[in-house]
Amino acid sequence: MTPEQFEVKANPALWERLGMNVERFSGMPKMLTEAFRGIYLSQKNRPARMEYFDGMIAELHSGRVEELVTAKDAGRPVVGTFCVYVPEEVIMAVGGICVGLCGGSQGSIPDAEKVLPRNICPMVKSAFGFKLGKICPYFQAVDLVYGETTCDAKKKTWELLDREVPTHVMEIPQMKRARDKALWLEEVKDFTSKMEEVSGRKATAEGIGAAIRVMNAKRLALQRLNDLRHHTPSPISGKDMLLIQQIAFYDDPARFTANVNELCDELDERIAAGVAVAPAATPRVMVSGTPMALPNWKLHHLIESAGAVVVNEESCIGTRYYKDLTDESTATVDEQLSLLTDRYMKIDCSCFTPNDDRIEQVLVEYRASGAQGLIDYCLQFCHTYNIEAVKLREMCEREGIPFLAIETDYSPEDVGQLQTRIEAFIEQIRG
Amino acid sequence: MTPEQFEVKANPALWERLGMNVERFSGMPKMLTEAFRGIYLSQKNRPARMEYFDGMIAELHSGRVEELVTAKDAGRPVVGTFCVYVPEEVIMAVGGICVGLCGGSQGSIPDAEKVLPRNICPMVKSAFGFKLGKICPYFQAVDLVYGETTCDAKKKTWELLDREVPTHVMEIPQMKRARDKALWLEEVKDFTSKMEEVSGRKATAEGIGAAIRVMNAKRLALQRLNDLRHHTPSPISGKDMLLIQQIAFYDDPARFTANVNELCDELDERIAAGVAVAPAATPRVMVSGTPMALPNWKLHHLIESAGAVVVNEESCIGTRYYKDLTDESTATVDEQLSLLTDRYMKIDCSCFTPNDDRIEQVLVEYRASGAQGLIDYCLQFCHTYNIEAVKLREMCEREGIPFLAIETDYSPEDVGQLQTRIEAFIEQIRG
Repeated sequence: MTPEQFEVKANPALWERLGMNVERFSGMPKMLTEAFRGIYLSQKNRPARMEYFDGMIAELHSGRVEELVTAKDAGRPVVGTFCVYVPEEVIMAVGGICVGLCGGSQGSIPDAEKVLPRNICPMVKSAFGFKLGKICPYFQAVDLVYGETTCDAKKKTWELLDREVPTHVMEIPQMKRARDKALWLEEVKDFTSKMEEVSGRKATAEGIGAAIRVMNAKRLALQRLNDLRHHTPSPISGKDMLLIQQIAFYDDPARFTANVNELCDELDERIAAGVAVAPAATPRVMVSGTPMALPNWKLHHLIESAGAVVVNEESCIGTRYYKDLTDESTATVDEQLSLLTDRYMKIDCSCFTPNDDRIEQVLVEYRASGAQGLIDYCLQFCHTYNIEAVKLREMCEREGIPFLAIETDYSPEDVGQLQTRIEAFIEQIRG
Repeated sequence: MTPEQFEVKANPALWERLGMNVERFSGMPKMLTEAFRGIYLSQKNRPARMEYFDGMIAELHSGRVEELVTAKDAGRPVVGTFCVYVPEEVIMAVGGICVGLCGGSQGSIPDAEKVLPRNICPMVKSAFGFKLGKICPYFQAVDLVYGETTCDAKKKTWELLDREVPTHVMEIPQMKRARDKALWLEEVKDFTSKMEEVSGRKATAEGIGAAIRVMNAKRLALQRLNDLRHHTPSPISGKDMLLIQQIAFYDDPARFTANVNELCDELDERIAAGVAVAPAATPRVMVSGTPMALPNWKLHHLIESAGAVVVNEESCIGTRYYKDLTDESTATVDEQLSLLTDRYMKIDCSCFTPNDDRIEQVLVEYRASGAQGLIDYCLQFCHTYNIEAVKLREMCEREGIPFLAIETDYSPEDVGQLQTRIEAFIEQIRG
């Protein structure tokens, strides 16, 4: 596909039906089209199978939303989430659909700042603003939102979001001892009851078992892709990998898995044929830290425009979403919920204290990815990741790993300054 | 006492013994002397019994610290805390002493910012910096610190503080349902075991019962004082009331209670005699929000210098510390710990979600204090109070209460701007 052939599709009738602010939203597909052409379709030598994922972006405001509306019409609940802690398997087990909500764009932040303080996380502000402004079709399509207590800003914003769209909150414990797992299991059980109530369907062992298998397959496909991507020279760009990990939160899981595996087959061939997106000598950078919600491509675009390739994301839109699988060997619902709880408790979010497993995990991924430097990415005012970066920096010093900590938001204001710092960092890697 | 007679005492030999940075700290008593003379002793018509509390400030770096060291020498553990959630009764039950730690001063923030991010809470940075710089005698005197998980910045900073001084962390739940109370009770039991281990003494029903009575008496004395203070015209300044509430975290509980009650007796007499700190027509302002650790007098000094009187603090250094008592009617340790848990779960910190009880509590205190306007005080980057201020503002609009939200840190940089805003707010009250 040439850049000119790509277009994010519009569907004003659908948007109208969803109660969106159509007038304000109507410029959005064009803006996304231009950004995507410039940032994505200008890349050289992309895998052919990226076409599917490009197509998902083309359908982001129309086709995929239509699928959700059709599912709703058929009585399937659609649940919006903001966090990898909400167990999708439970939603799927009652025939529901789990979808990530908009929160990666500067455009909605002024809406949020009419209510929220300015100096909180841009992702939280962006998400809240999308709902206030009625400019996210996913927010408009969901039956309810499941929030969580992973950080101060989210926890308190859900109280205000609940006035705009029904928002249920799961309490995530702050430690990982037996009593915390017990609390979390109770939360997962409550969530299951809520999903049964919303759907009018029972979460059976068959349903949960099937959902666990679907999600395990999805996570395995992403693991396979990330392993292939670690090859030197890289068979796929960091930007494309980021895009796929972002689409993981929007797409139908089974279809997504099939397409990721087809892309993996192509990457196998590329590696065998020595085809890469950049020469083997290209500096390799790993990114750790806070998530990058669609269409937040700011950091990856800066890094790859500066002549490096991003080879791993240790992030919730990254390995934290798919590094852990759920045990499939159980028979009863109680056992399944308990094993799901175990799986989700492995997530090494910085909301936990202590969270030293994450520091070790970053090092494991750094070694596996063949990276030559670590950039820690922190969304502005994210206290937990920001303070945890102290330990990441120490680990990097201990291991002799070049380290750069970046704290930024969605605005373009600091792009020049970031570019200078990133270029200097890449020069340091080149040595 | 004339301002010239007041002096914060020095004790370099004691500081040396505590491993302090004596050279750096030696200028501190003089700085505090000057600040206290200017801000406190310049006030007109103070109650005579404030002399005791002024004396506590004079002994802040010497006499009170000596008492702690003497207690330690006698085998009594000294525990430092940062939060009204840590149950002091348990520390007292094993013969220990609970003391608030330094965290209210700009001077230690540059120390902290060598390690921590700049854009987190000034109280957390100040506290961490006091320990790093070895410039807080209390931090040096404690056997251990008990932290908690009430906010992101504290939760993650304790991980780093633990390297400097043994820091145990209690998990505070984020909701207030039965399962949260169960988790919190487990934490209180763990805390009790830890205190028994540290002290080598058993927490008996007699010991806990006695401690509950001491703390109830202390809280009742503060309630009595705050009730008297609500009288129009005010018999005591807001600055003096703030000072007493700050000293509550440093002083010996029984001695403190006796002195508060003596001050109350004097205020009874002043009210009967029509003696006040300011005329009845003086605008009355209530402050809500984040705590003001000693010597953070910035906001109160600005408000009272602008010609108003502060008549209530809805804060952890304020009513949140003493509004709730513990049931004294039980016999066994298990019952006592359970009732302590109930008492502490009533604290309406913004770390909870939802926390609408706090909004109602602010209104109750506002009405009781005869305030004519509410200033919400938020330490910079305190996300939970900052976002909860949205609901406070709405409540004030609904009730027709003049409302001003202030977000600030410990630096003098914004004083001019705050002064302008506060003066305009007081003019609005004057109508």
